[in-house]
Amino acid sequence: MGGLSLTILKLGGSIITKKDKPFTPNLESIDRLAVEIAKASVKSLIIVHGGGSFGHPVAKRYKLKEGYRHASQILGFTKTRQAMTTLNGYIIDALIRHRIPAVAVQPSACTITKEGRIFNIDMKPMLKMLKTGFVPVMYGDAVPDLTLGFTILSGDQLIANLASDLAAKRIIVGVDVDGLYTADPKLDPKAQLIASLNLQELNRLQLAVGGSTSLDVTGGMFGKIAELMPIVEKGVEVIIINAGVPNRVYRALTNRGVVGTRLRFR
Amino acid sequence: MGGLSLTILKLGGSIITKKDKPFTPNLESIDRLAVEIAKASVKSLIIVHGGGSFGHPVAKRYKLKEGYRHASQILGFTKTRQAMTTLNGYIIDALIRHRIPAVAVQPSACTITKEGRIFNIDMKPMLKMLKTGFVPVMYGDAVPDLTLGFTILSGDQLIANLASDLAAKRIIVGVDVDGLYTADPKLDPKAQLIASLNLQELNRLQLAVGGSTSLDVTGGMFGKIAELMPIVEKGVEVIIINAGVPNRVYRALTNRGVVGTRLRFR
Repeated sequence: MGGLSLTILKLGGSIITKKDKPFTPNLESIDRLAVEIAKASVKSLIIVHGGGSFGHPVAKRYKLKEGYRHASQILGFTKTRQAMTTLNGYIIDALIRHRIPAVAVQPSACTITKEGRIFNIDMKPMLKMLKTGFVPVMYGDAVPDLTLGFTILSGDQLIANLASDLAAKRIIVGVDVDGLYTADPKLDPKAQLIASLNLQELNRLQLAVGGSTSLDVTGGMFGKIAELMPIVEKGVEVIIINAGVPNRVYRALTNRGVVGTRLRFR
Repeated sequence: MGGLSLTILKLGGSIITKKDKPFTPNLESIDRLAVEIAKASVKSLIIVHGGGSFGHPVAKRYKLKEGYRHASQILGFTKTRQAMTTLNGYIIDALIRHRIPAVAVQPSACTITKEGRIFNIDMKPMLKMLKTGFVPVMYGDAVPDLTLGFTILSGDQLIANLASDLAAKRIIVGVDVDGLYTADPKLDPKAQLIASLNLQELNRLQLAVGGSTSLDVTGGMFGKIAELMPIVEKGVEVIIINAGVPNRVYRALTNRGVVGTRLRFR
């Protein structure tokens, strides 16, 4: 993949759905993001989005992440799996409306995990589409798992894997806060945005804040950064930005200065 | 796959969509079929459906089957590809409503063709889901092609490939006529239904009728049978039935006598 100079853009579930209303897309936000992506006109781009209020409620109720333990989970899996296709459809529709040649790539059709970690992704169809000029759009999904039967694959694990296998140049992670803070900015007025962070600083901070503050089935901000750090070590540029603020995704995609947290190797 | 005793059910595009109205599902028909499939309760089942008025109009206009020749086709590909996901969504929703653990498996996410013929399908995720107790649902799709850039993969080529690779026991092909006739039953009142047909008889008949009467981008009835004959030679039971007539799919799924055309090796 050298020469493709690949960009991976992650759109968090909290940006593209209304987090408090199950199965409700944030159509305004999706449309604005499609406009920003179209305007940036990045050559080689893969988009990965989260599940937000489409993926999480049913996945949580049926404990899908833990694997297949009871027959009652079977319909929960099918509903979560299909809800992700529905959410993805809203995003593809918006991208096509703005003339971005977006093509859905269903992760559970080409990915198998083992104990919740990616065991194999057949990337050949997706890569062929990327090289032909399309913008593949993937997402966190309910996937088959070799040992667990099935599980939940987070968009964050997926982007880390894609970035590594395809030697991506950069990952832009769009969330609903400005980046990583020294404390929870919603609770602590003294919380400060961390403009740049390396692995050592992350470990120190994690101890200070008191470990993971995971609020959703796929992990919170620390989980997100922990997934991405091995990629940063491989030389991939990673920046976490607030995709809910207009123009931040556009500025990040076009390499303009933007508020956010950059992850550094050293 | 020995021991799974796999059944593949094909649902033709003309049954699940309103053929004269672009992008219009036949919801009544889809719901009735979901009821029949639920009632039959087949253990190991893969469903494959066609595109009908979702897949064909745009694919035809942009000549997608012939491959990538002009930049204007790019958006045609993305629209056709996405229309298939939309149609598939109606079918998955109906199946889940009737408590069938249906899981979409997007062919273009796991399949790559070469000169329009399947070059590779990564079936591992789909197989794992099948073995866990789900009903994978695939479809004719706009897919990446190694030499053409992209093309259209017909549901018929797909079922032949699946049946061969997974050593299926039987294929039930649901179309909008009772089976293969000695002449076009819509034009010739003397046309007779052929209850059973082998390869030799097919060749003789094809000469008599005057070759392919292909009316859609994926070929007509002869194209369908030509795709399936190599599978019949491998010992897979194949029957073509009218899925538009209530209870025929149910009777075929439960091995009851049913009107149709059986394909025989000899």
